[in-house]
Amino acid sequence: MELVKPRTLSGFMELLPPEERAMQRFMQTLRQNYELYGFTPLDTPIIESSEVLLAKGGGETEKQIYRFSKGDADLSLRFDLTVPLAKYVALHAGELQFPFRRYQIGKVYRGERAQRGRFREFYQADIDIIGDGKLDIINEAEIPSVIYRTFAALGLERFRIRINNRKLLGGFFEILGIEEPSEVMRTIDKLEKVGAEKMRAMLLDDLGLSDAVCDEILEFLEASATTEGALAAIEKYRGRSELFDTGADELVTVARYMGDFGVPPEAFAIDFTIARGLDYYTGTVYETVMTDHPEIGSVCSGGRYDNLAEYYTSRKLPGVGISIGLTRLFYVLGEQKLLDERAYGAPADLLVLPMTGDVGPAARLATALRDAGVRVQLYCENKKFGAKIGYADKLGIPFVAFLGEDELASGKVTVKELATGEQSSFEPGELAGWLAGKLAERAGTRLIRAAE
Amino acid sequence: MELVKPRTLSGFMELLPPEERAMQRFMQTLRQNYELYGFTPLDTPIIESSEVLLAKGGGETEKQIYRFSKGDADLSLRFDLTVPLAKYVALHAGELQFPFRRYQIGKVYRGERAQRGRFREFYQADIDIIGDGKLDIINEAEIPSVIYRTFAALGLERFRIRINNRKLLGGFFEILGIEEPSEVMRTIDKLEKVGAEKMRAMLLDDLGLSDAVCDEILEFLEASATTEGALAAIEKYRGRSELFDTGADELVTVARYMGDFGVPPEAFAIDFTIARGLDYYTGTVYETVMTDHPEIGSVCSGGRYDNLAEYYTSRKLPGVGISIGLTRLFYVLGEQKLLDERAYGAPADLLVLPMTGDVGPAARLATALRDAGVRVQLYCENKKFGAKIGYADKLGIPFVAFLGEDELASGKVTVKELATGEQSSFEPGELAGWLAGKLAERAGTRLIRAAE
Repeated sequence: MELVKPRTLSGFMELLPPEERAMQRFMQTLRQNYELYGFTPLDTPIIESSEVLLAKGGGETEKQIYRFSKGDADLSLRFDLTVPLAKYVALHAGELQFPFRRYQIGKVYRGERAQRGRFREFYQADIDIIGDGKLDIINEAEIPSVIYRTFAALGLERFRIRINNRKLLGGFFEILGIEEPSEVMRTIDKLEKVGAEKMRAMLLDDLGLSDAVCDEILEFLEASATTEGALAAIEKYRGRSELFDTGADELVTVARYMGDFGVPPEAFAIDFTIARGLDYYTGTVYETVMTDHPEIGSVCSGGRYDNLAEYYTSRKLPGVGISIGLTRLFYVLGEQKLLDERAYGAPADLLVLPMTGDVGPAARLATALRDAGVRVQLYCENKKFGAKIGYADKLGIPFVAFLGEDELASGKVTVKELATGEQSSFEPGELAGWLAGKLAERAGTRLIRAAE
Repeated sequence: MELVKPRTLSGFMELLPPEERAMQRFMQTLRQNYELYGFTPLDTPIIESSEVLLAKGGGETEKQIYRFSKGDADLSLRFDLTVPLAKYVALHAGELQFPFRRYQIGKVYRGERAQRGRFREFYQADIDIIGDGKLDIINEAEIPSVIYRTFAALGLERFRIRINNRKLLGGFFEILGIEEPSEVMRTIDKLEKVGAEKMRAMLLDDLGLSDAVCDEILEFLEASATTEGALAAIEKYRGRSELFDTGADELVTVARYMGDFGVPPEAFAIDFTIARGLDYYTGTVYETVMTDHPEIGSVCSGGRYDNLAEYYTSRKLPGVGISIGLTRLFYVLGEQKLLDERAYGAPADLLVLPMTGDVGPAARLATALRDAGVRVQLYCENKKFGAKIGYADKLGIPFVAFLGEDELASGKVTVKELATGEQSSFEPGELAGWLAGKLAERAGTRLIRAAE
């Protein structure tokens, strides 16, 4: 037979078993923490009608979309989880309770240029809170606390959630008499990337702002280097634009309640340079940076929007949400050697080796231990003893149980802890309890190690 | 703005939140039980190169495949999880330990004719054990116990795992002098569907077998109506075909050890009519039927195969696996009213209602409870009191906490259990423990209710 060379498409992450267990643990941590805040899981199709998925049309992403025909149908693979959410809420609004809090962890597709660390198939992990007509500002203060709790549970320590408010920025530009605020927002959003000099040149040359206006913008942006500076700058401009004042009230409220929601002061900052390029956002905006790796950029971004589903329904559905680019974050953590291999775990807790022809006692032991919640693998292949122990060792299975003639005669089980080489003998009924204690000692390693 | 009508493609399951929580619980139960047997999770891309995915070529499925181009690439969506597993093992064989035990729960795509209860995007939940060159028969006895444990954990009670052996059937046909055994196998596989009369006619007319041979086939098949009958029939034909004897030994071994692996006698049966249409299977084969709903057909099928990845590698990789068509099973259980809504759960355990202007104390209470593992939602929308309680009620959130002037003054929290209307007052520190006890009482409902 002529063989086909097996390969996985470039830009598609496919992990080996230990890394996949880490990824599963990552996702399970997200689910558990999202659920602590009352978010309900959602699952929508990966394929949608192109008419529905591309209702908004145009934009940067359109070229990247996987779009194809099947029979008469014009189909596309989802490129984010927000558009499917908008469709879902518009379609099922009558059957949902608002505020509707959902999370979704799922694969999305973008045919980007192949490049190291860029993925064409990747997981996003989104949370959103959708209101019916209105949505209280408190929700905007709560969202960062979900991210804080989740990242802390993963073990990530040195990160900062930066918050800003688009109304505040818009009002500030209004005060300065700027006519095209969204162009200016897109430009200041690049400050961290291009630096102050370059940004100033862009404002002057490309957008035609005056020197004085550029100075004032830069001074304002730099004020938010500290929380005190940010709050002082807010007070300085108060009373000159209704939009500014609304944004200021919102930003101060969000900052005020973040502590009550459990986010310590060092984990967040007001940052006037966070604008988020998208016009979609209308109030609070978020970015999250790893403090030791600012070059990675934001690993978790989002914000407040006024109309989730305006392409599908005239019902006003404001919301606030945030998204983790999970595949990229996992990749980056791996690249930075920040994933702790001790947390990857093994596929089983115990390998049972039957040493006689009759596998019955070993099967019954495995069954009893599984009943007690121990993850047991039976190894019955015809291999030398050393190969069997080597199998457990290579897989990281911490304990091996032997059932030889002696054990069958005495009714006991011999268990070896591979890390120490210690052997002990147990009545089968005692083994599960002993293992549970031993395994508890080994658990608790967080997935992400502390940065040095 | 012109609105686009939101819709979800037909043949694509999209659940409302309560049903999605049930589906998530279903999948979590599968994961937990698969892991008790040492299976490691795997995740492979949904898109593969068509050349790789269709290496086997032809067949019924090819017309149903979602195949398209992106740039120069000829791509296809996976239509099962077995071909991606074959690719994965062939590609990464040097980095895996054998036997390699993996599970994968993922979406697959088949463009079937739209029909009620037929899905074009559906989850499969597969477990496989892959050996390197050889794989012990004990693995074939263990696989049904994974299914038994998983179904029992879900609450499914009246089901039967039917086992057979392709070598035994092949040897039997050899003894009868039948020249095209695979045609006969495909025909007897239809016995349950078409009945004995029709099957006999097919054997006589379409395959040209004699009356005497048909009689002997039917007699043999009917012998497996009971385990005793099956074992007697096996003994009757022993010694006349090497293939039959090998199959007989395997089948008897598998049946013998299933009890040791925890499968009670009433949950499995030897059934000579189980042939599985596919030539792919070479030894033990499995089907699982719901005893009260035989019309549904097999909800979980699989078997032993000799060469997982023969299209990709000359390395011999025998294996055994079984697959649950999860989306269809979930749909069928719903149709049969077998899903227990009490097990769907709520998105949160407690709804906290701040009753004063300062949300701080409510936010701090929610934070402390979340720290203790309670799933808490804060409700801050400007609605009437009744609407707030109604929100909890409609979502099934069992407890509501009030923080009004009285509570703030006394430092206590009032909690109402919606099902009983009972109200109690707590020190914030006591609340988590009390809720944990109350929630434990409510937990434990299995997802699938007992058939009547």
